[in-house]
Amino acid sequence: MQNVFEYLGGHEQRFIEELCEYIRFPSVSAQPSHARDVSSCAKWLVDHCSSMGLKSELCATSGNPVVLATTLKAGAGTKPHFLVYGHYDVQPAEPFDLWTSPPFEPRLEGRKLFARGASDNKGQNFAHLKAVEAYLKTGTELPCELTFLIEGEEEVGSVSLASFLSQRKKSLQCEAVVISDTGIPGKKCPALTYALRGIAAFEIIVRGPGRDLHSGIFGGSVDNPAMVLSQLLAQLRDARGRIRIPGFYDDVVPLTSFERKELARLPFKDRDYQRFLGVPALFGEKGYTPMEQRTSRPTLEINGLTSGYQGDGSKTIIPAWARAKVTCRLVPDQHPEKVIKAVRAYLKKICPPTVRLEVASGHGAEPYYTSPAGAYAQAALKAVGQAFGREPLLMREGGSIPIVTEFRKTLGVDTLLVGLGLPDDNAHSPNEKFDLDCFSSGMRMGAMLWQELRGVFDARKPKRRLARR
Amino acid sequence: MQNVFEYLGGHEQRFIEELCEYIRFPSVSAQPSHARDVSSCAKWLVDHCSSMGLKSELCATSGNPVVLATTLKAGAGTKPHFLVYGHYDVQPAEPFDLWTSPPFEPRLEGRKLFARGASDNKGQNFAHLKAVEAYLKTGTELPCELTFLIEGEEEVGSVSLASFLSQRKKSLQCEAVVISDTGIPGKKCPALTYALRGIAAFEIIVRGPGRDLHSGIFGGSVDNPAMVLSQLLAQLRDARGRIRIPGFYDDVVPLTSFERKELARLPFKDRDYQRFLGVPALFGEKGYTPMEQRTSRPTLEINGLTSGYQGDGSKTIIPAWARAKVTCRLVPDQHPEKVIKAVRAYLKKICPPTVRLEVASGHGAEPYYTSPAGAYAQAALKAVGQAFGREPLLMREGGSIPIVTEFRKTLGVDTLLVGLGLPDDNAHSPNEKFDLDCFSSGMRMGAMLWQELRGVFDARKPKRRLARR
Repeated sequence: MQNVFEYLGGHEQRFIEELCEYIRFPSVSAQPSHARDVSSCAKWLVDHCSSMGLKSELCATSGNPVVLATTLKAGAGTKPHFLVYGHYDVQPAEPFDLWTSPPFEPRLEGRKLFARGASDNKGQNFAHLKAVEAYLKTGTELPCELTFLIEGEEEVGSVSLASFLSQRKKSLQCEAVVISDTGIPGKKCPALTYALRGIAAFEIIVRGPGRDLHSGIFGGSVDNPAMVLSQLLAQLRDARGRIRIPGFYDDVVPLTSFERKELARLPFKDRDYQRFLGVPALFGEKGYTPMEQRTSRPTLEINGLTSGYQGDGSKTIIPAWARAKVTCRLVPDQHPEKVIKAVRAYLKKICPPTVRLEVASGHGAEPYYTSPAGAYAQAALKAVGQAFGREPLLMREGGSIPIVTEFRKTLGVDTLLVGLGLPDDNAHSPNEKFDLDCFSSGMRMGAMLWQELRGVFDARKPKRRLARR
Repeated sequence: MQNVFEYLGGHEQRFIEELCEYIRFPSVSAQPSHARDVSSCAKWLVDHCSSMGLKSELCATSGNPVVLATTLKAGAGTKPHFLVYGHYDVQPAEPFDLWTSPPFEPRLEGRKLFARGASDNKGQNFAHLKAVEAYLKTGTELPCELTFLIEGEEEVGSVSLASFLSQRKKSLQCEAVVISDTGIPGKKCPALTYALRGIAAFEIIVRGPGRDLHSGIFGGSVDNPAMVLSQLLAQLRDARGRIRIPGFYDDVVPLTSFERKELARLPFKDRDYQRFLGVPALFGEKGYTPMEQRTSRPTLEINGLTSGYQGDGSKTIIPAWARAKVTCRLVPDQHPEKVIKAVRAYLKKICPPTVRLEVASGHGAEPYYTSPAGAYAQAALKAVGQAFGREPLLMREGGSIPIVTEFRKTLGVDTLLVGLGLPDDNAHSPNEKFDLDCFSSGMRMGAMLWQELRGVFDARKPKRRLARR
């Protein structure tokens, strides 16, 4: 392993330059205007993987292509096979004016690399690629066979990936999936994430008059869709942070006291957190700590509001319609379809007869949970601890990685979530950044991981068939 | 008068063409990008008035210019002087995609002339100009001296006009102001408007985190500005149409039983009105008819909502801020400043400590009321009745003409509101139109008016000084 670590240390400057190349593609999957950038980014990635010595393939889907890059060769070997998942697509960069430097022109400030996608997820998945490059280029034998699966639709709900997994099910059979697309509390505080929140996205559209109306001539005798929307939204959550949709909490599995103790070990200061967010006061569901609220409790958030006149000055109208974009974060054992059904039923019930209501469902993903006591999880914890030089913590993550439940459904395997993001990485926000210390530790962790996982595989080999579901 | 009416009838085709020229200027005062169009429109209007034989002047203000055009000559005559007010600026045309034809390219369909500004207010003030042209070009003696005052900031609160009136106070001294900028129930149902609603505009801005946040990583532990805004807005009006701001109704003068009877005479069918608006059900304050609700009761309307991501697909953020544009329509004796003060105090009281609240006040205008039993009002009713060939009704109007209270304050005179707009004119909406039958009747009414008003003036002449306040 000495060779591998030396290689990683000795080539870091080049790795950073390559990462910048990767980041410069504005591969925004949500915006059709970036379709060509998404596809160029995928092509670049395939070429890059090939140049590292991986057998690489640009796989067409009904949406954006998937990049597959593998060490597997024809004729089955004896090594265990693991999948490393990542995504090369990124969130929209808007609002542009809040960026200190252009979002797709990486800017290095000390050890911080600022750009859209730097942390979520290009920097994190690139660390795994470079760890494998170190094995390949130093002629060190990889203890496992590895396949990188890097998709281009994570930020829009991984719409094509489920059918892709089904089609390639055979060649993707593996022991487990490894993903670095989550966060850790600090660069001196590494962690293994054993649960993720799911998501249920929908839009509420309230339609009133057939066109915008003069608020003087008609106002008072016709309902205002923006007011009705506000009143509907206001009834979705109370002032104490509790969601008021009947049945919303029915399937929520309560946190165990072990989990609450583990979450309480994570470094967290209310005052620092409040200052970091820039809010005048914290807010959250009564009876839970902020760390519990943001990782282990379901939420309902308005992501956007649109109605009537938004330009300069004023326009005295009753708008014809009003729309809210909403997403719920879900926890085990909630289901997106069931939640959206409950939302729809509740809104239908409370909506007045003076408007027309539409609830359009968007993408959804189930929440994820896997026991941190499992052997592969314990092996991953060991690799993380060695790479960062600190005892890793156990945590739940508030974000969603929809594909994780897909891996379980289609391939029957769990996922090891070994995140490299920091709390101030500004993922999904202006001025996203990736810490290069996390990049270095991440590459070392990536290198260690295959040794540790191989150890578990060898130990459990005889009962392997039984262990697999 | 025979000559005058024949001239009006004989030249109508040319008048329509001239009106189209006037309408083609996209004189949108709310949008700085149209500043040049506003100024070109004013220049065209001055030239047009001059060509009719009026002494015309383009008067600079701190904002858009005022057009003055008068029959007054040096050396005071014995005729009474009246002011005819109008505005050459128009509302924004957005949303453009809902227009059947381009908003600034007039389109004639039968007797309907479609274009932004056709009814509000270019068509209506042009009818008065053409009535006077008929006197001037046929050599018929005008019974009154007239000054046209046509401003370019009515749609943005007539910001420069108050100081303009003060500066020109002497030359603008008059018996009364005449304005056609209101509506009538139908073209066979003319009316005189004796009251207008006022307006109070403001914006509510709710600021939360310093930037848009990832709703997965942070959601649950921080308040959502769009949700707080919705909850604040929801508390401004109840489900029965009653405004919940403490003190809001304090200064409202109740409708008299005479007024309620007069309003009940106006032709109105709930079912037709509902179909016309395109709403699934009517809505309004309990205890009042729709006609009362839209003309004689105060309102609070959301004109626009803006927050977070509004583009394609979804973006899973907690938006940093959310904003609502709001206007209240006011009735006698409410005051805009007092209403905004009450709004601010209430919002401040109900706003949670988790966000920062800003209430930015916009333009305001006081409501207007003048007794329909006055002599000039009765004379105007007579002219309206003759021109339309029907007995005119008495009505209140839900819209606001901010300058009317300014005329009373600065010049000490009342305003005669002889509207030519129809309920389906789509003022402030896409596909605005003006009915050319109203244009014809309006020109005849304009011609009759000066005869009737002169009669009143002559009859009250001896006690004139006493009658003036």
